[in-house]
Amino acid sequence: MINVDLSKLPEISPKDWQSELSAAHEALLGGTGKGSDFLGWLRLPEAYDRDEFARIQRAAEKIQSDSDVLLVIGIGGSYLGARAVIEFLQGTFYNLRRHKLPEVYFVGNNLSAAYMAQLSEIIGDRNFSINVISKSGTTTEPAVAFRVWKQKIEEKYGKAGAAERIYVTTDKARGALRGLCDKEGYESFVIPDSVGGRFSVLTAVGLLPIAAAGVDIAELMRGAADMMKLCLSPGQQNPAWQYAMGRNAMYRAGKRVEILACYDPDFVFMAEWFKQLYGESEGKEGKGLFPAAVSYTADLHSMGQYIQEGRRELLETVVLVEEPTASITIKQDAENVDGLNFLAGKTLPDIEYQAFCGTLLAHVDGGVPNMVVRMSKKDTHGVGQLIYFFEIACGLSGYLLGVNPFDQPGVEAYKTNMFALLGKPGFEAQGEALRARL
Amino acid sequence: MINVDLSKLPEISPKDWQSELSAAHEALLGGTGKGSDFLGWLRLPEAYDRDEFARIQRAAEKIQSDSDVLLVIGIGGSYLGARAVIEFLQGTFYNLRRHKLPEVYFVGNNLSAAYMAQLSEIIGDRNFSINVISKSGTTTEPAVAFRVWKQKIEEKYGKAGAAERIYVTTDKARGALRGLCDKEGYESFVIPDSVGGRFSVLTAVGLLPIAAAGVDIAELMRGAADMMKLCLSPGQQNPAWQYAMGRNAMYRAGKRVEILACYDPDFVFMAEWFKQLYGESEGKEGKGLFPAAVSYTADLHSMGQYIQEGRRELLETVVLVEEPTASITIKQDAENVDGLNFLAGKTLPDIEYQAFCGTLLAHVDGGVPNMVVRMSKKDTHGVGQLIYFFEIACGLSGYLLGVNPFDQPGVEAYKTNMFALLGKPGFEAQGEALRARL
Repeated sequence: MINVDLSKLPEISPKDWQSELSAAHEALLGGTGKGSDFLGWLRLPEAYDRDEFARIQRAAEKIQSDSDVLLVIGIGGSYLGARAVIEFLQGTFYNLRRHKLPEVYFVGNNLSAAYMAQLSEIIGDRNFSINVISKSGTTTEPAVAFRVWKQKIEEKYGKAGAAERIYVTTDKARGALRGLCDKEGYESFVIPDSVGGRFSVLTAVGLLPIAAAGVDIAELMRGAADMMKLCLSPGQQNPAWQYAMGRNAMYRAGKRVEILACYDPDFVFMAEWFKQLYGESEGKEGKGLFPAAVSYTADLHSMGQYIQEGRRELLETVVLVEEPTASITIKQDAENVDGLNFLAGKTLPDIEYQAFCGTLLAHVDGGVPNMVVRMSKKDTHGVGQLIYFFEIACGLSGYLLGVNPFDQPGVEAYKTNMFALLGKPGFEAQGEALRARL
Repeated sequence: MINVDLSKLPEISPKDWQSELSAAHEALLGGTGKGSDFLGWLRLPEAYDRDEFARIQRAAEKIQSDSDVLLVIGIGGSYLGARAVIEFLQGTFYNLRRHKLPEVYFVGNNLSAAYMAQLSEIIGDRNFSINVISKSGTTTEPAVAFRVWKQKIEEKYGKAGAAERIYVTTDKARGALRGLCDKEGYESFVIPDSVGGRFSVLTAVGLLPIAAAGVDIAELMRGAADMMKLCLSPGQQNPAWQYAMGRNAMYRAGKRVEILACYDPDFVFMAEWFKQLYGESEGKEGKGLFPAAVSYTADLHSMGQYIQEGRRELLETVVLVEEPTASITIKQDAENVDGLNFLAGKTLPDIEYQAFCGTLLAHVDGGVPNMVVRMSKKDTHGVGQLIYFFEIACGLSGYLLGVNPFDQPGVEAYKTNMFALLGKPGFEAQGEALRARL
């Protein structure tokens, strides 16, 4: 279960927020707010395509049976969610661990030739499959990567053999990849029109790589569905209401940066997913909390100083996993040279919990309001809950902020410039003007 | 070589900064500024202990010859620098690549029992060594990890065998680990009194793990020494002056967040190292730019929207590597379904460079001033230069900001609370008061 604790914020009167939250909730559920063409994620945990879901599960089993490596080609929302869930549930060292599951690498999210060369070396002569994820099929980074890896996989397995190892997740009807699927006979899955990239982790976009990495995606969906039932009910007991209210109250009070903190080192990419979800949904019209992330306790020894004593424009949200997944007990040591005997008999989770408590109070005392998002357990069901919680809270939060949380008009600016500079047909005039400024 | 380009900032008049920069420079070099007990890093690239350096190289060779894995136990400045250099030079996939160098894992920087369990599984029955890095020897996270792994290594190799595989980097005379070295005969290296953790990457703290991972540390020091010669000369041609001036000018103009961006996915931990260096040096007295990081082009599809159109309190600094380390040429494709044929004949580094140019102009046009730190080449020498550049610029920048860039008083707050909550002798009264607030 997900529980939001606002007791470490300056007092907020829920009454003052009731009408705004009700209006945001109604707009979201009724599809009457900004960006309502992109609400396909809202009821997805119940409304998903069961036949496609079963095909995803079968594809994942096939990949597990015939591949040592799955290469996932995608950028932004087409990779962050899958990477986040795999690392959070299967461990940040997933690709190094001793299991029979395929290693999963994400490519096509940068333009580094050295990165591709490293991956070629790692794959070596082992068996691999590709999942290419792109709505249009023409986004530069994944399209370039697919050109490169399609050639490699066809060289290795022949065109027909490769076609059985290429899985495409794309638009249901249009786009470069859809045409290719029809022609080459690739197994394909759908990115629904009404689900934007950053909300797509519970579609085929996230589910195929996540399933290939051994996660029970049916359980993930059940977790999301549980949270959906809870969060579709309006009211102050709704954790999404609480979180949306807490962060908007702090924004209006002058906070400018929200730091998402977690004590679990496997959470790092969940935080990256969160940063896209909130940054891209709210960072527009000159508004929005700047999303940042820290991994504790490591970053208490790097960013901790700034958080404790830097500019007082920070809000901190801690995701706390309540039930530990592993434990080690500190033993008594006869010599006690490290002075740790006062911890003897305590477990690492005990110590971690006290580090959390101590940090919470220290940061609050230092002028950094804290919210705590408690998840009772780090399991597949709980991760499904957490994902849906952050998604729906993001929709509400964006409406409270007064923006369209479902568009991303600013992402085009660099692309347009880049195309112009690269001489893409149709952009020639702009290219000259830009070059003159460099 | 390192070159700082301020042409994409609002105009700054160097004349206006001359006297402040001169004063900061003199205070730093003359040791007359705040925190001057901690300037050991300033002349380190020339003034280091040659005998110890040779011992570090020999220790690294021994580890390479007898270990499949090196476990580095340390937190904050005792791990970030080494991890940053290893991943930047040897690749983010270093531990997965096919080479004969020991894998290097960092532990003791969190309190996760699951993380330790993952590492145990990865090591399996292979040979390993330990480098424990801690000035006092009593910092909770590394001390706990060393208790755990010392027991494991002694179980595997016996006490005498383990003693030949434990390398200690600690205070020259005091502390828990120093006593243990004397007693057990561990090979040991010194954390100089005058070098704080975040400035310690070019001491044994960083150098032993870096050397074990196959990096030529003599070349790294030569790079740093080159940059030192350049940066110890006062004047506006000094790149450290330029960077310190640029960021302070933007801070005074109301910018609140500095985003460090790089197009090289191997740079991620260099950015983490940077965040500690600047955040911990400047985040005090309610001051300082909040340091954040992005990895491009990936994060143009996540944080890009916020950067382009969110609150206009951002400053962006791009580290640009000019000479590519690898290349792939885009080929003509007869069918051109992905529409990429306009890129045919271009290389990935070409495209990446135009993505950089296009993004630079888009962000500047969107109201985000940009600085560009150009490094001509990503090689060991260049990384040594970059490290020293960021260190000395940080000292100057902190003096311009008016803080002591070499202390970290805020890091104690959470520790004190944690100790109190854990019942550490001497902290009992505070513990009760804190528990009452939870």
